[in-house]
Amino acid sequence: MPDLIGDRAAVAEANARFYQAFEALDLAAMDAVWSHDEDVKCVHPGWPLLTGWGAVRESWQAIFANTEEMRFTISDVRVVAGADLGWVTCTENILSDVRGRVTVTAILATNLFARDADGWRMIHHHASHVLAAGEVAEA
Amino acid sequence: MPDLIGDRAAVAEANARFYQAFEALDLAAMDAVWSHDEDVKCVHPGWPLLTGWGAVRESWQAIFANTEEMRFTISDVRVVAGADLGWVTCTENILSDVRGRVTVTAILATNLFARDADGWRMIHHHASHVLAAGEVAEA
Repeated sequence: MPDLIGDRAAVAEANARFYQAFEALDLAAMDAVWSHDEDVKCVHPGWPLLTGWGAVRESWQAIFANTEEMRFTISDVRVVAGADLGWVTCTENILSDVRGRVTVTAILATNLFARDADGWRMIHHHASHVLAAGEVAEA
Repeated sequence: MPDLIGDRAAVAEANARFYQAFEALDLAAMDAVWSHDEDVKCVHPGWPLLTGWGAVRESWQAIFANTEEMRFTISDVRVVAGADLGWVTCTENILSDVRGRVTVTAILATNLFARDADGWRMIHHHASHVLAAGEVAEA
């Protein structure tokens, strides 16, 4: 499997742009990060699967509208780039303030990117909570 | 992005073999489904990220050892095949019997496969619970 350093860096940059758009609550930046294909998919923590850019964009719009401020650090970033698909796993360490309630949460994310003429665009985001010890359900 | 019907069918078959191995609690079949690379990853629902075939294999061994019977149906299967990476989203509707306790659970899964000389091998499994309405956390 090809895994060129240049492609891996480009996928890592696309992943970083996604989190910059997320932290800035910037829908126009999300428009630029994501593919607008009808097959793109998104799973927010605990949400059902969303399919198609229209549904995915609406979900970000709703999240941004209900979030006053979003701050996080991204850790454990692992990037693999193939010929036309790239994938990233990372941990989102989120400090959020939703209507005055501040929470810190660790979220595991799998992010997929497809290469198009302009570079790498996000095609799938799957994020889920890590449960504390004792809460863990089996697969 | 290439998305040949033959490749998509082959990725779908690899995905089906994964669930057959899972339902059969068959570690040898899991050995055949997965890549044995040190970079493979796995997120069981609520678990932290596991990295490397050794850790991933141990997790299946532990799950199988603690599960008497596993029955499920897989729905909403969506498959995309690229040149060297393929990805699947699906819903696992799991009926499980863990030490006498029967539960039905809907799990969302993102499964990634890489093409090698012998075909498509699983390189990442990210599974997470869908929360009921009212439990949903924002991203």
